Amino acid sequence: MNFRLVFTLTGKTLMVEAGAMLLPLLVCLFYRENPRPFLITIPLLLLAGFLLSKLKSDDHFFSREGFFAVALIWLLVSATGALPFYLSGYFPTYIDCFFESASGFTTTGASILTAVEPLPKGILFWRSFIHWLGGMGVLILAIALLPSLGSRTLHLMKAESPGPVVSKLVPKSSQSSKILYAIYCGLTILEILILRIAGMPWYDSIVHSFGTAGTGGFSVKNLSIGSYGSPAFEVIITIFMLLFSVNFAFYFLLLQGKIKQAFRSDELRFFLVVVFSSIALISINIWNLYPTGGEAVRHAAFQVGSIISTTGYASTDFDLWPEFSRVLLVLLMFIGACAGSTGGAIKCSRVLILARCIRREIRQVIHPREVNVVKLDGHVLEESSLRSVHIFFSAYMLITLAATLLVSVDNYSFGSTFTAVVACIGNIGPGLEMVGPMGNFSAFSLFSKTILSLCMIVGRLEIIPILVLFSGNAWKRS
Amino acid sequence: MNFRLVFTLTGKTLMVEAGAMLLPLLVCLFYRENPRPFLITIPLLLLAGFLLSKLKSDDHFFSREGFFAVALIWLLVSATGALPFYLSGYFPTYIDCFFESASGFTTTGASILTAVEPLPKGILFWRSFIHWLGGMGVLILAIALLPSLGSRTLHLMKAESPGPVVSKLVPKSSQSSKILYAIYCGLTILEILILRIAGMPWYDSIVHSFGTAGTGGFSVKNLSIGSYGSPAFEVIITIFMLLFSVNFAFYFLLLQGKIKQAFRSDELRFFLVVVFSSIALISINIWNLYPTGGEAVRHAAFQVGSIISTTGYASTDFDLWPEFSRVLLVLLMFIGACAGSTGGAIKCSRVLILARCIRREIRQVIHPREVNVVKLDGHVLEESSLRSVHIFFSAYMLITLAATLLVSVDNYSFGSTFTAVVACIGNIGPGLEMVGPMGNFSAFSLFSKTILSLCMIVGRLEIIPILVLFSGNAWKRS
Repeated sequence: MNFRLVFTLTGKTLMVEAGAMLLPLLVCLFYRENPRPFLITIPLLLLAGFLLSKLKSDDHFFSREGFFAVALIWLLVSATGALPFYLSGYFPTYIDCFFESASGFTTTGASILTAVEPLPKGILFWRSFIHWLGGMGVLILAIALLPSLGSRTLHLMKAESPGPVVSKLVPKSSQSSKILYAIYCGLTILEILILRIAGMPWYDSIVHSFGTAGTGGFSVKNLSIGSYGSPAFEVIITIFMLLFSVNFAFYFLLLQGKIKQAFRSDELRFFLVVVFSSIALISINIWNLYPTGGEAVRHAAFQVGSIISTTGYASTDFDLWPEFSRVLLVLLMFIGACAGSTGGAIKCSRVLILARCIRREIRQVIHPREVNVVKLDGHVLEESSLRSVHIFFSAYMLITLAATLLVSVDNYSFGSTFTAVVACIGNIGPGLEMVGPMGNFSAFSLFSKTILSLCMIVGRLEIIPILVLFSGNAWKRS
Repeated sequence: MNFRLVFTLTGKTLMVEAGAMLLPLLVCLFYRENPRPFLITIPLLLLAGFLLSKLKSDDHFFSREGFFAVALIWLLVSATGALPFYLSGYFPTYIDCFFESASGFTTTGASILTAVEPLPKGILFWRSFIHWLGGMGVLILAIALLPSLGSRTLHLMKAESPGPVVSKLVPKSSQSSKILYAIYCGLTILEILILRIAGMPWYDSIVHSFGTAGTGGFSVKNLSIGSYGSPAFEVIITIFMLLFSVNFAFYFLLLQGKIKQAFRSDELRFFLVVVFSSIALISINIWNLYPTGGEAVRHAAFQVGSIISTTGYASTDFDLWPEFSRVLLVLLMFIGACAGSTGGAIKCSRVLILARCIRREIRQVIHPREVNVVKLDGHVLEESSLRSVHIFFSAYMLITLAATLLVSVDNYSFGSTFTAVVACIGNIGPGLEMVGPMGNFSAFSLFSKTILSLCMIVGRLEIIPILVLFSGNAWKRS
């Protein structure tokens, strides 16, 4: 393992984080709040980042360094991003701050705060801004800003890019990061403007757009988006949550005018089928709970969009819905968004590939002499890709079950414990019962909060990097 | 598809089932109960079996016929085995009888009866006897009894044998069935005798031994084994539940004097580690709930043995235990027994193989140039075997989640709904909350009972055969 290079990368990322903190600092000053949390953290980060990045190293950079660096960076960025929360004095312990920060950077949106409205606007701004930073990955930002990394970036992309297939938009990795970044910024600004035009205050529009773009879900209101009681806001945010769940390559193709090609994606079709059938089924299930059918459909669409995109906003307390709707939402928590989006969880393409592998196995029994392959978008998938999907799924489910056991030490109900883990590893935010959309994670022990924080990072980095970091083998000098 | 042959096999199996019903008929007569349920069912089965088995066919027999036949046979045997229940008048609807019968033949042990003690002894005898029949598979019985099938039996074995690797004990399949059958009978008789000597009445010893041998779990007492309040019975049954969870090849090797070789099994070691560490963890967790530490350990051991063997007896109401113990038991419901035993669920060997595949993936990242293989018992597993394990696991989890959604229509709590499905597909019996060890499945709708019955058969036949049966492709004439 080339530790020096890993530390150099980590150091550079911490300096980027320090730079990002200037924005919440400005918000503090604008609202005449105490800037101390940021004034202390920024110099600390700059110093640590500077010292780490000064370690000279050669260019040996393989997958393992990429995976290792990504895991370490997400842990350290979460740990240091927690400092402003800690210094603000609104959080009971440092572990709570780490949970909140990891929840932000991993775009989960699970919170230990019982009420958010009493907090200063600067702290809440940072809390939502880290969703946005996490959304496309602090590292992709770093790649776009630090082109000096050159060809070494591909490994980072592979370790971090959400989804089973690395599809580079244009040959040069640093170029493609910039395009993604531009699409991401463009869509965010569009959402801010539309929300503002619909009547949401500037500050609220900005933080909620950060939460939507990163598919995070932190709100500045105790009752989330439902607190405004505005159908317009709900519809706008539903649409943007779904827009941010789609593979960003889709927008790239649209920009190039390749509209047919953009829609010729098996994953996109699967995603749309799941979204619309879920909305239909839940609408029917909750029809009588709301004064009008339109309202039922609107709430169904908002919650489906919120969960499948792994955002986690709520327009209503879906924990009070009938069991069918609740379980359907839990299923969507497993499926998650499309690969190559800012969403989390297993991803539509993986679920689709798994289903096709099972179908192939049945065909193989019925017609043993036929050659059966698994295709996606008309291309035959290699067996090694299929194996990766299977390994990912197995590890995801086994870690979910193991983490449920660890968190169960706190002795909360099965539904609360299980869905807390599912919501954290899938980077959704709310689960059911105690951790429902109107609940929070404050009651868990510090041990469970640590486990759940790790689940968020494990889920966000698609498992393997964190397993590499915790593997004894990886720590040996090569 | 060679339908004629499939029907011939099915017919022969129905005739075996008719023969098996003579035993509960004798019990009826012995206890001077109404023999009508059996007197009507037996001739019906004989007639149907005779007509089906008369269909002449050629010898074309491939995997698909094996899978198809196994699936059809388990469905039909469950459907016809339900007739005595229906005719007894103690069950509300035919679907309830089908649920109970499928639960018996699949050795699940989930019941829709709110109280079992009022039922006639003959009916309860049949209910437990089908556990025993199901345990080694009506088909392995049929193979041992009908050697005329000759070489065609291997495909049947492959479709039905529980576990990822078909390890034939001796070259001739029919020979190996007889050995398995002898071990099975021997252990059953041993348990009956030991329970009798310990003071359990003859009738109770026999039915509870049937339930243990088949890893079923139907009891003739409302409070299961706990109703006797006898530590001796609990210890004996704990030991036998664990004995029946072990790969039967182990006993075969012991009988041959190959003791070292018998213990040189990765799966056996993994199983023992899981069993003993679970007992230790639960004992600590429930230490203060019982008057003495010994009692805590005894109950922990009984419940761990009961769940990991997928039997489902209870010595105490584990649904009242702390959440950690409850979740640990749910995890054991997923793991299940060893391959090649009468137990169900995912099986220890598969879990072990999955864990090793994940470890290999991590190693591959760290040392990309090394050749990494997955071994079991010192042998390298082929990639196609690994693929089957992955496919099985994915299908198992996806079906569990999908069935949870379907059953959630009944609007019971998340814990009840989810663990009902887990307990049915894993052939365990009890779950948590409403379907806990002192609860039952009576409250579910007929729709949910049908879904849960199918889950039991899907789990028992290791998924693929049922998927083949329900695949449109399989119904085409070849």
